[in-house]
Amino acid sequence: MAVKSDIEIAQEAKMLHIREVAEKLGISEDDLEYYGKYKAKLSEDYIKRVKTNKKGKLILVTAINPTPAGEGKTTTSVGLGDALSRLGYKTVIALREPSLGPCFGIKGGAAGGGYAQVVPMEDLNLHFTGDFHAITSANNLLAALLDNHIQQGNELGIDTRQIIWKRAEDMNDRALRNIVVGLGAKADGVPREDHFVITVASEIMAILCLASDMDDLKKRLSRIIVAYNYNGEPVTAGDLKAVGSMAALLKDAIKPNLVQTLEHTPVIVHGGPFANIAHGCNSVRATETALGISDITVTEAGFGADLGAEKFLDIKCRISGLKPDAVVLVATVRALKYNGGIPKAELGAENLDALKKGIVNLEKHIENIQQYGVPVVVTLNSFITDTDAETEFVKKFCEERGCKFALSEVWAKGGEGGEALAKEVLDTINTKPSNYAPIYADDLSLKEKIETIATRIYGADGVNFTPAASRQLSKIEDMGFKNLPVCMAKTQYSLSDDPSLLGRPSNYKITVREAYVSAGAGFVVALTGSIVTMPGLPKHPAAFDIDVDADGRITGLF
Amino acid sequence: MAVKSDIEIAQEAKMLHIREVAEKLGISEDDLEYYGKYKAKLSEDYIKRVKTNKKGKLILVTAINPTPAGEGKTTTSVGLGDALSRLGYKTVIALREPSLGPCFGIKGGAAGGGYAQVVPMEDLNLHFTGDFHAITSANNLLAALLDNHIQQGNELGIDTRQIIWKRAEDMNDRALRNIVVGLGAKADGVPREDHFVITVASEIMAILCLASDMDDLKKRLSRIIVAYNYNGEPVTAGDLKAVGSMAALLKDAIKPNLVQTLEHTPVIVHGGPFANIAHGCNSVRATETALGISDITVTEAGFGADLGAEKFLDIKCRISGLKPDAVVLVATVRALKYNGGIPKAELGAENLDALKKGIVNLEKHIENIQQYGVPVVVTLNSFITDTDAETEFVKKFCEERGCKFALSEVWAKGGEGGEALAKEVLDTINTKPSNYAPIYADDLSLKEKIETIATRIYGADGVNFTPAASRQLSKIEDMGFKNLPVCMAKTQYSLSDDPSLLGRPSNYKITVREAYVSAGAGFVVALTGSIVTMPGLPKHPAAFDIDVDADGRITGLF
Repeated sequence: MAVKSDIEIAQEAKMLHIREVAEKLGISEDDLEYYGKYKAKLSEDYIKRVKTNKKGKLILVTAINPTPAGEGKTTTSVGLGDALSRLGYKTVIALREPSLGPCFGIKGGAAGGGYAQVVPMEDLNLHFTGDFHAITSANNLLAALLDNHIQQGNELGIDTRQIIWKRAEDMNDRALRNIVVGLGAKADGVPREDHFVITVASEIMAILCLASDMDDLKKRLSRIIVAYNYNGEPVTAGDLKAVGSMAALLKDAIKPNLVQTLEHTPVIVHGGPFANIAHGCNSVRATETALGISDITVTEAGFGADLGAEKFLDIKCRISGLKPDAVVLVATVRALKYNGGIPKAELGAENLDALKKGIVNLEKHIENIQQYGVPVVVTLNSFITDTDAETEFVKKFCEERGCKFALSEVWAKGGEGGEALAKEVLDTINTKPSNYAPIYADDLSLKEKIETIATRIYGADGVNFTPAASRQLSKIEDMGFKNLPVCMAKTQYSLSDDPSLLGRPSNYKITVREAYVSAGAGFVVALTGSIVTMPGLPKHPAAFDIDVDADGRITGLF
Repeated sequence: MAVKSDIEIAQEAKMLHIREVAEKLGISEDDLEYYGKYKAKLSEDYIKRVKTNKKGKLILVTAINPTPAGEGKTTTSVGLGDALSRLGYKTVIALREPSLGPCFGIKGGAAGGGYAQVVPMEDLNLHFTGDFHAITSANNLLAALLDNHIQQGNELGIDTRQIIWKRAEDMNDRALRNIVVGLGAKADGVPREDHFVITVASEIMAILCLASDMDDLKKRLSRIIVAYNYNGEPVTAGDLKAVGSMAALLKDAIKPNLVQTLEHTPVIVHGGPFANIAHGCNSVRATETALGISDITVTEAGFGADLGAEKFLDIKCRISGLKPDAVVLVATVRALKYNGGIPKAELGAENLDALKKGIVNLEKHIENIQQYGVPVVVTLNSFITDTDAETEFVKKFCEERGCKFALSEVWAKGGEGGEALAKEVLDTINTKPSNYAPIYADDLSLKEKIETIATRIYGADGVNFTPAASRQLSKIEDMGFKNLPVCMAKTQYSLSDDPSLLGRPSNYKITVREAYVSAGAGFVVALTGSIVTMPGLPKHPAAFDIDVDADGRITGLF
C-alpha cells in the first residue's frame, strides 16, 4: 500500500468546527474571532482574563542537532499533545506559525507529519490568519517612512551608509538580497544600497513574539534602531513617528490563533521568528495563554537544543518569567548513527558501533538541559528500520544519565503512539522538581555571556572575537544594552560553529564575527558566520508542483 | 457642536453580527467563512449556487471628473443602497476594497463618509480579509520564479532588458519605483533593473476582478506576459510553471467578502484595481453574486465617468455579460462651479454664472452614458453652502436632457437622505428601458477603438499616436490581441489628457504615448501620459497621526 502524503492525511481528516475545539477549553464563542470554520483568534479581552488563572505545567520539546535524516520535533510535539489528551489531561500545544515563502522552495510544510499534524494544513502553511502579512506591512511601512524622512529633508541626519532597517517579504527571493533603491528622478527617492529579508527574520517578528500586550508591543517597536545618524547615534522607529501606525497594522496579529490537531487537541499557533538571528519560539502570549487554560502545555523551540532550547531558556523564559517543568529531547536512531559518521544511504542497517559513536551528541544536549535545572525525557521518533538492540541501547544510555526514555510512534499512530512518551513525561513532572535558572546572569558583560554559552552549552574551549565584533560589542554596551541577553546566530548542524563537526566536538573555539543589537526585541545578536536571511529557490522549486482545483482543494503542498 | 470624523461615526455604530446581515439575504451560516464577527467570505459553493438565480437590477454610480472640491461617489453609493433598503427593496451594494498603502499617505479611507459608510471602517482600510496580501504574494512569487529561472540557466532565453513583470507591495514607497536587484555574489541572482508597483496596480488584481471562477482565474494567470525572450516572443506565467502555486495563494482571495453599512445594508466588497492602467471596478464575481441575491444591486466605478464608467461599460460588462439598468451620475454644486473656473476658496458663495459655465462637464458625461443606451439619474451630493437657485438650475438642466434628478443628503442623514434619489432611480428603472451596448465593437483595430473612445467619450477631435505607440499597438495586434478591449490610462481630472482643461474641452487631440497588453486581464493598456504606479508619502504622512490603544481601538485613520 502506498504511504499517504501529509497533505492527503490532513485533507482526509474530519476537523471539528473550531467552536467545538474552543468549547473543550471553556472558551465561549464571544471570545473567538473566526477565520473561516477551522481557525480563530482569541480575543484580547479573553487573553487578559486568563492571565491571572492558575498555570498548568510547561513541557518544552527540543531535539539533537538536525541532520538530513530528520528528527520530527513538531511531529513529536503534536503526538505528545494528542497522547496527553487521550490520557485525560486538558492539553494545549503552543507552536510557531510556518513561513509562507519556503513552501515554494524545498522545505515542506511545518505542521507536523503523518498522523501527528496540525490542521488545516494548507491554511497553516499559506496565509493562515494573515499575521505574517501584517508583520511584513509594518516592517515595510517603517522602511517607507525611513526613506521618506531622508527624501523630505533628513532632519534627523540619518547616515545613508548606516541604515540598519531592511525591507521584508515572505517569499524566497534571492534577487532581493542586495539591491539599490531610490533610483530615477528627484521625486523617486535617495539612491542607496538596501536589502530584503524574509519576514520571519524581521525584528518585528521577534518583537511580536516577546511582547506581553499592546502597550509593551508599542514600547518595543519604538526602541527599534533603524539607522545611525552622522554623529553615530542611533535613530529609532520612535524618532520616525512610526510606532502608532505599525501597532495599528499589528492589532490583530498580536492575538494568538487557535487550531486543532488531527485528533482535535487544541493548538495555539502564533509567531515564528528565525532561530539564528532571533530566538525561534512561538509568542510569549501564546504560551502564557495556553498555560492559563490547560493542565499541560506542550511547546517547542527551533533547530537543535543548543540554539532553540538555549534561547527558549535564556531569552524567552528570562524576558517573560516562564518556567518549564520538563524538556523532551527528540532524537532518532538514524540521526544518531549519522552523527556517528554513517552516510545517509546506509542509515537503514543496524549499526551499534555508529550509534555508540554518535550518541555523544544526545549526551551533550542532555547535560545542557540539566545545567538549567530542568528534568529531561528523551524520546526516539521511531523508524521502521530501527532494531530492538539499537532502541535498547539508547534507552539504557539515557536512564544511566538520569533521564526517562520512551519510544514515540506518533508519526504512524498519532496520539496512541505517543502514550508511552506521555506517561514518562507525566511521571517526570510528578516526581522530579524543575529548578530552572538561566545559564548566565543579566549583569555579565556581553562577551562573558557569549563565552558562557560557548563553553557551557557548545562545549567550546573559548571564543575568538574578531576586532569588528569586539568594537561592536563595546559600542552596544556603551549604548546602554549591556544587560540584554545574547542571541547566538550559529549553524544548527553542529554544536560548534562548523557545520561539518558532528557528534560532540571538542578542543575548538568558536569565532564571533559580528554583533548588533535588536533593541526592540531586547537581545544582542552575535553572529558566528554569515546567516542567509533571504532564502533562494532551487532549480526545481516546490512551486512547480503545487496546484488548486475548481473547489479550492490544494495539491502538491507537502 | 464639532462635526464628527468618519472614524468616530463608524466606531459609534452598533454593527450587527455578520451572520444577521447574511440572514437578511437568506445566506445560511454554512455558506459563510467568518473573519471575525463583522466580516465574512461567501463560500465557493454558495457563489456557484446563486449563479443561476434570477438577476436583480444593476445600478452603476459614477461621477463627473473629480475636483479638489470632492464628489462623494462611494458615499452616494452607500447612501443610495441604504435608502433602497429603507424603501423595502432587497438591496446589495458591491464596492471595491480600499488599498492599504495610501491610508498612511494623504488619502483618507475609502469606505464612504459621514452617515453613509461601510463598516468595520478600520478593517476595511487596513488588512480586511487579506485579499490584497494574497495578491501581493502571488505577484511576488511570480517575480521570484522569473528571476530564479534566469538564475538557474535561463532555458527560456528571457531577455533581462525586456522584463515586464514588476514586484508589488501594498505600501506608498517611492524608493522602490526604480531599483536594481540581484546584486552581490553569483548566488544572489542576476543584476537587472526592476520596479515595484503598488498592489492595486498588479495585473493579478485586474485578473482577480475579471475572472469568473478558479478555472478562469488559472487560464488568465497563465496568459500573463512576464517578459520577452531574445527572439522578441512573449514569455508567460504559464511558461514559468507558476500558475498552480499562484492560484493556490489566491484560493480564498477569489471569494467575495460580505460586510455592512452603518444601517446594516449588505455590502459585498471585493477587489480594487487601479482605474487608469486597469479597469477600476470591484470583481465580476462580487457584482454577479450581488445580482443573484438582491432586487437591486448598487455598484460603482473609479474616478469620473470618462474613465470609470467607460471601463465598466466597455471592459467589465463586455467581458462578463453584465448589463446595467441605470447609471447614477454624482456631481456637486461646488465641483461644477470649480469646473466653471472658480478657485477652491470661493466655492462657498452662490455663483450661477460659474455653475452655468461649469455644468458642461456634467452635460458631456450625461451624453456619454446615453450613448451606451443606459438611462441616467443625476444627483447632487448636497453641501450646506448650496443655494436653492443653484440646485434648481442643475435640476432643470438635467431634466431638459431627459435625466431624472434628485438631491442627495446621505452624508448628513444616511439612508433617509438618499430616499429622494432612490425614488428617482426606481422610477427610472421601472419606466425607462436600458439598451446597453458597448461603444465599440470587438473587431475594430486597436487604434480605431482608441479613436472611438477619444472622439465619442472624451470629445477629442482625434488621436496622435507616437511612433513608439504605433509600433507597440501593431506588435500587440500581430501577437493576436487585436480583439481585446482597450483600457485607457489618462488623467482623471479632465475629459482630455491635459489635467488643467476643466469643463468640456474641445478642439484638441489626445496623444497616446505607449501601449502594452495585459494578456491575463484581457485588455490593451493605452497610456496618454506617465502614470505613477507606486505612490510616495508626503512630508507629513497620515501615518504620523494613526495610533491604537491597549484595547485595539484605532485613532487617526480617516
